[in-house]
Parts: sequence; structure tokens; C-alpha cells
Amino acid sequence: MISTKGYAAQSPTATLQPFSFERREVGPHDIKIEIAYCGVCHSDLHQVRDEWGGSIYPMVPGHEIVGRISKVGAAVTKFKAGELAGVGCFVDSCRTCESCRAGNEQYCDAGMAGTYNGYQMDKKTPTYGGYSNCIVVDENYALHISEKLPLQAVAPLLCAGITTYSPLRHWKVSAGQKVAIVGLGGLGHMGVKFAVSFGAEVTVLSSSAAKEADAKKLGAHHFVNTGNQQAVKAVRGKFDFILDTVSAQHDLNFYLNLLKTDGTMVMVGIPPEAEAVEAFSLITKRKTLAGSMIGGIRETQEMLDYCAENNIVSDIELISIQQIEQAYTRMVKGDVRYRFVIDMSTL
Amino acid sequence: MISTKGYAAQSPTATLQPFSFERREVGPHDIKIEIAYCGVCHSDLHQVRDEWGGSIYPMVPGHEIVGRISKVGAAVTKFKAGELAGVGCFVDSCRTCESCRAGNEQYCDAGMAGTYNGYQMDKKTPTYGGYSNCIVVDENYALHISEKLPLQAVAPLLCAGITTYSPLRHWKVSAGQKVAIVGLGGLGHMGVKFAVSFGAEVTVLSSSAAKEADAKKLGAHHFVNTGNQQAVKAVRGKFDFILDTVSAQHDLNFYLNLLKTDGTMVMVGIPPEAEAVEAFSLITKRKTLAGSMIGGIRETQEMLDYCAENNIVSDIELISIQQIEQAYTRMVKGDVRYRFVIDMSTL
Repeated sequence: MISTKGYAAQSPTATLQPFSFERREVGPHDIKIEIAYCGVCHSDLHQVRDEWGGSIYPMVPGHEIVGRISKVGAAVTKFKAGELAGVGCFVDSCRTCESCRAGNEQYCDAGMAGTYNGYQMDKKTPTYGGYSNCIVVDENYALHISEKLPLQAVAPLLCAGITTYSPLRHWKVSAGQKVAIVGLGGLGHMGVKFAVSFGAEVTVLSSSAAKEADAKKLGAHHFVNTGNQQAVKAVRGKFDFILDTVSAQHDLNFYLNLLKTDGTMVMVGIPPEAEAVEAFSLITKRKTLAGSMIGGIRETQEMLDYCAENNIVSDIELISIQQIEQAYTRMVKGDVRYRFVIDMSTL
Repeated sequence: MISTKGYAAQSPTATLQPFSFERREVGPHDIKIEIAYCGVCHSDLHQVRDEWGGSIYPMVPGHEIVGRISKVGAAVTKFKAGELAGVGCFVDSCRTCESCRAGNEQYCDAGMAGTYNGYQMDKKTPTYGGYSNCIVVDENYALHISEKLPLQAVAPLLCAGITTYSPLRHWKVSAGQKVAIVGLGGLGHMGVKFAVSFGAEVTVLSSSAAKEADAKKLGAHHFVNTGNQQAVKAVRGKFDFILDTVSAQHDLNFYLNLLKTDGTMVMVGIPPEAEAVEAFSLITKRKTLAGSMIGGIRETQEMLDYCAENNIVSDIELISIQQIEQAYTRMVKGDVRYRFVIDMSTL
């Protein structure tokens, strides 16, 4: 077994503290990554505090993992020691169901093995995430990371990046389309970058007028303050596609009304309670409300390659592991532009 | 002007009574249809009783109209006197917006001119529907009706038929797919016939065990009593497509859970209140909830031609116009198999 250092929560009310644990030896199909950086996702906090229920403690959070490979198993063919590699939100899946065979491991019928706060596919060995110095992962669930981009700013692509890239690709967002991004946080700022990069005419919808300058800086063509009735009226029925990144409670009908006929709105955040949907909002203009969750390994690699080619990374604030509780406090307030990333050398 | 006889409601609480009114003379682009049969849609009752608000009185309901052409205008090219023709849910639209140009007049940006309880595109001349002896309509908003099929059973195709045909076609329901139809009423029974005809494996979902025999008679391959937990569990995650024809309040998440990954559920009924949708239901398997409303003229003609080729009609109960209130009373109880059609010769 491999002695590993990390930071863990021991209960929903405890702060994160140093924690020692063991990872499995590098098996024939495994690679070992020395973790350089790990992004801080809002879902880390939800799970640490057991806000979704069913949390497993001790919990080592973190699923936006990048680092350099220190060892590869004898049967590994896709990676070499010394290369950069990444791990996202899952480390295994059944590999045999229709979704897995289609490369959509995130929708695995047997349930993917989450990178942390989950179990390996044996359903009994707990998984520990990236707030740690190393990780051992099957090569089929690791990603190649380009040397071209600033590594710390690549980390959030493993969750915030793929979560927004995947629906924009799946629903074929492209040049000539009018796209709105709801919410300008970790997910939203990546949604803006990708939608702009795909050639769409991008509008950020936000209740905070202060975000206009930021939205424009990120490449958005327009900004609509959702508190401004005149401005909202002007975009009614105007959008082909809306990417809704908000995980707080919000009125979906308000946004559905901004879609044009045959328009699609995709949710990637999970509000705590069910949202009321007016059938009228959908029926009268054949609108679609859908959901999307991260992306499969193949698509995540495609996204990372696309980012390397097009020089796209996340806007981040680098922190030490000792600053994690402070980061959580700021994240709850939405006070982060746009993703905290932990420098794991501080561990 | 053309003196016309019909049945009208004078207020939300009045019963339908004989009513005389005038229709416009046959203009150069118009045809005049002597109405033989008119279907009775549940929305007739909703509108007569002002349950959706904004009803216009006196109201002559009816938007499932078939009959024989008695006169055509000088510039008419698509129809000849003596032919059968039909009128569905709308009699005009702006003809210039993106939806109209695409043949989706039902989603017209300016708002289609409803066949009754609406206004012509001048937004001031009221429209009167098919519970009457004749109608004058622009040839571009009339449909060709085959002589091959029993005419009274064709009438409901103009609303119940196209409302179910259109989403099944739009979302490309075809052989090899597992399709569920929720609700076995006027819409649902047509949904079953079309989905079966398109080659899908069709399951009827109903809370009434008594409907099983009927579902099978209509061609459904399977029946699931939604009150039977074992039976419901067996179809969790099984359907590619669900057509939801229910307009009473119902739990959408229950049905969304029966979709497989990337599955789509389309609502064609409008429950009185908004329905609660769990983001989780959509996100975890990239599911889609959409709405669809009737169909455009081009697609309605395609549907009618398809029905003539494939010998598809509605199952109906023929009534006299004097029985309309009795029919409404039975319709509220769901006591109709599956559509009342008025024999207009009884007027």
C-alpha cells in the first residue's frame, strides 16, 4: 500500500484537517500521479457538509486533479512516467453497460465510482480525492494533459470545464446561434469561454450588475441584468440555447420564456428543491428543458485537447491547502473569480 | 356575408344553445366547407367554461372539422368544389415569421388565429369554430382529406391526431425504440396507434387497470398499471421516449425516472398548475423534458396522408349536436372511447 497525505473532513461539522491514509499499490493497469494542483468545486463543500445526504467520512475531497506521473503499471499503454495527467469526477465505471460502451461513463448503469465520497466498483472500498499528494488510478480513467497550458489553471477543466463543454457540444452550439449563460461562477465563466469559442453570440444573464465588466472581459458579447425588466423584455424569445449553471433555487419559467421556438435550456446545477415548470412554457413554442452531468472520458480528453489548441483555461485563485476553510467561506458568498485551486506543494 | 347556424356558449356558465351568425363571403383565396362532422376536444370544454381565462363570447367551439367544399375563390389553386377538406386548430398566421416560413404556423411569432375563441390576424374579427354548418377559410390553412377513410373518424385527426403525430415525428420515434404513452384518452389512443405504426415497442402507462384490454386492442405491446410498484420498478430507466398526454396534475419525476439515459419525455397536455421538476431527474442521465403543440399545416397534411395510406383513424362515438352537454359531462369523467364527434347534419 502507498502511504498518502491529504486533508479530510471527519464529519459534516468538522473543518478539514491533515489526514494520513493508504492508496492501493500501482496495479498492472494503473498509473500513479503526484498531484500538483487540485481545483475546489462547490460540490466539495456540499459533500463535506453532507448537504446532499449519504456522505462518507473521513472524506478527502477534490475531483479536479492534475499532476505528473511517477509510476505506471506493467500493462499500461496510454501513459508514460514523467508525463502530465489528470483525474476528474470519477475513477471507474462498469465498462460494460450501454452508456460505458458509448463513452458516457458518467451515466453508467451501475453507477460510476466517484473520485471521492464514493466507492470503487467493488462498492466497498472508499475513494479519496485530490486534496492529497498522490492518486492511483486505472489508465482508462485518467486524462492526458498538455504541457502548453499553465497547469494550475487546467485543473478546473476536469469538472467545471467538461460540465459546460459537454452540453454545449451535445446540443451542437455553434456559430450563428444566440446563447445565454445563466450564472457567472466556476461553471458559468467556463460556459462563456466555450460558447464564445464555438462561435455563438453569447449573453450573460445575471442579477448582479457588477458582473457586466467581468462578463465582457471573459468574451461575452452582451450582458443582461435580470433585474432590469426592459432589458429582459428585449431578449424574450431570443435564445437558441441557454446554459443554466445556477444551483440555488431559481425560476426556470423566467428563463424558458427567453428561449425561441425549438430552443433548449440545459441545467447543470442542482437546486436543493424541485423547480416549478409551467407546461405552457414548454408547449407553446416546443421548448426543451434538459439536464447534463460532467462528461465521459473520451469527451473530457477532447475538451482538454481543444483547450490546449485554443488556449482556454480557467480563471483561478491559487491557495495553499491551509487556506481551504477560508476558501469555502468565500465560495459560499460567491466571492471567487472563478475557481480556487489548491497548490498541493503546500501540503 | 354568409348566414351560418351553429351552437354557441354565451357565457362560462351557460349551456351551448343554437346560434346564428355570419361568416365572410368566399374571398379569392378562400374555400367554403359544408361541415359534415366536428370532433369534440377537451379543450372545447376548457374554453367554453373559461378555465384558461380570456374566453371570448359568444363562442362557437370546434377545431376538428371535416366536410365537403361547396365553393372556391377565384384565385384558389389547391382545392376544387366537391372535394373533401378539413380545418384544424388555426385558420391563419402571420405567414412571414421564421416559424411560419418553416411550416410551423402553430408557433407563429404573431400568434396564430385560433379556429374559435380567437381573432383573425386583424386581431379584432372573432373566429367561430366547427359546431356549425359551414366555414370559410383561406386555402393555405385547409387540409386535403382522403375519400378512403370513414369521414367522421377522420375529424379528430385534425387535433388529437396531429398533436400526437407531430412530437413522435419531431423526436424521430422509430422501430427499435421503447415508447411509453401516458394517459389513454383522445390524445393517448392516437399516440398508441401512431407509435405502433412507426414500429416502436409501445407501453401504455395508466393508473386504471381496466384500460389494459383497451390498450392491447389499440395495438400497445405492454401495459403497466402505475399503481403496481413491482410493475413500475421493472420499467425504470427503460424508455427512449415518453409521450405524456395527461392534462391533470401529475408527478413528472415519476415518469422521468422511467426514461433511459438520453431519453425524452414530451408533454402535450397542460396541467392547471406548474409541475415540480427535480433537476436530479434530468441531470443524472441527461434526460429531456419538452413540450409540443399540435402541428403545422404541412405536417398535418403529411399526417392525414399517412393515415389514409395506413388506414389509421380515431375511435369515436358519434353524437348529435343536441347531445353536446351530455357529451361534455361524460368527457369530464373520462367516459369516452375515445373521441366524441358531432354529426353536423343534426344541426
